[in-house]
Amino acid sequence: MFGLIPKEESFFELFEAAAKNVHEASLQFLEFLKEFNDLNERAKRIKDLEHAGDQITHETINRLNRTFITPLDREDVHELICRLDDIVDLIDTSVSRMVLYKIKEPTQDALALAECLRHATAILVEAVTLLRDMRNAKEILKRCVDVHTQENEGDRIEQHALASLFENHHDPVFIIKWKDVYQEIEAATDRCEDVANVLEGIVLKNA
Amino acid sequence: MFGLIPKEESFFELFEAAAKNVHEASLQFLEFLKEFNDLNERAKRIKDLEHAGDQITHETINRLNRTFITPLDREDVHELICRLDDIVDLIDTSVSRMVLYKIKEPTQDALALAECLRHATAILVEAVTLLRDMRNAKEILKRCVDVHTQENEGDRIEQHALASLFENHHDPVFIIKWKDVYQEIEAATDRCEDVANVLEGIVLKNA
Amino acid sequence: MFGLIPKEESFFELFEAAAKNVHEASLQFLEFLKEFNDLNERAKRIKDLEHAGDQITHETINRLNRTFITPLDREDVHELICRLDDIVDLIDTSVSRMVLYKIKEPTQDALALAECLRHATAILVEAVTLLRDMRNAKEILKRCVDVHTQENEGDRIEQHALASLFENHHDPVFIIKWKDVYQEIEAATDRCEDVANVLEGIVLKNA
Repeated sequence: MFGLIPKEESFFELFEAAAKNVHEASLQFLEFLKEFNDLNERAKRIKDLEHAGDQITHETINRLNRTFITPLDREDVHELICRLDDIVDLIDTSVSRMVLYKIKEPTQDALALAECLRHATAILVEAVTLLRDMRNAKEILKRCVDVHTQENEGDRIEQHALASLFENHHDPVFIIKWKDVYQEIEAATDRCEDVANVLEGIVLKNA
Repeated sequence: MFGLIPKEESFFELFEAAAKNVHEASLQFLEFLKEFNDLNERAKRIKDLEHAGDQITHETINRLNRTFITPLDREDVHELICRLDDIVDLIDTSVSRMVLYKIKEPTQDALALAECLRHATAILVEAVTLLRDMRNAKEILKRCVDVHTQENEGDRIEQHALASLFENHHDPVFIIKWKDVYQEIEAATDRCEDVANVLEGIVLKNA
Repeated sequence: MFGLIPKEESFFELFEAAAKNVHEASLQFLEFLKEFNDLNERAKRIKDLEHAGDQITHETINRLNRTFITPLDREDVHELICRLDDIVDLIDTSVSRMVLYKIKEPTQDALALAECLRHATAILVEAVTLLRDMRNAKEILKRCVDVHTQENEGDRIEQHALASLFENHHDPVFIIKWKDVYQEIEAATDRCEDVANVLEGIVLKNA
């Protein structure tokens, strides 16, 4: 899949593939919530993206192990690809939980959280694409600040979601289920911030 | 704010400012629980400390990006300031949740956890202040062990808190709320241990 | 305890001791669930392993601080030993919670999760033992993939466990307790993956 790319560049191809895969998962997740039909079919599509992410991570590690000179420190390549993968895993878990809990319909807050996640992952695609050239340092750091802003926004939405959950519902099992779903989605936005932290670290070391 | 400090030293000023900000948040949190009045006003004050923490983190990253020679490895400067910031975030979340859940009165266990957090953050201020001189290595490592001890104490208190929560209460929604609050506070003490781990790593690398 | 081992090698002895301690905790945990008698006595034995893990971590940090040349980067030695320790902590927490919650009998899913953890920690012992010789790089990376596989398996079991919990039980307090127990055990398998990530990082840097 990535065999024809010259060595130095191939890691950036893999980072971009991983970031785009994460973003695609966030788009599919938003559509899952908006349409809320064919749930099993849609969940399977997101599970496929999760497997695709695992493949990219695996390919990156194999390539690191075969490559003598890497464009970034080996541990940073490894950290970046692993942290990107965490995001897809959490999107997949959020979807699985909603199916498992037989959620009847999504809430406005769940949609707002998914939209926040879509935004954060779109910024990550930009930031990762800029990583090929360290002269983009300032631009990358700006994107990282934007991801932090989205993560704060995610916190704010989760806070609102929990408030209205406890305000409007009294069935404890319903509360347990939704609290868990909100936390999994919010954890995905937290992982976006982790990727931003890794990107900041890389830029501050290399720029 | 930090403009007049000579370059080499300014990172230590920022670490100390961040650690003192964390400790101040823990003091305000303890007072919030002890007094348990003017909750919104008190919550706002802690939110302000959270924003102050974000500012210090942001300033540190900007300074890293403008500074050629740093007193510690760039990635360690970045990691230390980010992990310190996590603690204030979790104190702020704990307070927000208590307000959101319309908690009527704090428990003895919540107070004990907050006291444990106050203790751990006081030790972090000491450890971070000692970081200016690597001849303090042993003293810093001793402080890190003390933070680990406080984290174990936090675990023990959380265990007690959960035991008495399930023993004395049968309303599931009440249990869900307090279980969440205890976990957020305990997570803050876990983040103190993360900072201790970063400090240990820095000392072991540089001493 | 580790005083007679020549310097260079002693870190590997400590890693192996830590990994074996983690694995022993997983075996004791499986037995705790299978036998489900003398719970306090069995919980105490696992708490003792947790203290033994703390001791090994402490000894490793002291040794790092006294050793001039280390076989791996100092920060990697530190990271590996801390992440191994996290696993025992979570096994200990899982057991404490089951005792505290006065769980009447273990579920098949809890047993399956503990078996998954036993498997993952057995692989970690192998991987850590191979770490003495970087010519084992491929073999170590293969073990890391196997740990990732076990972590995915842990996710799958947790998913099944939650499905049957919500399907078959309607007492919210019962659900809260078991959901928490499952999450703690699954978190222990997540921490095995963290150790695998550290090992991958070390191998990719040094091989």
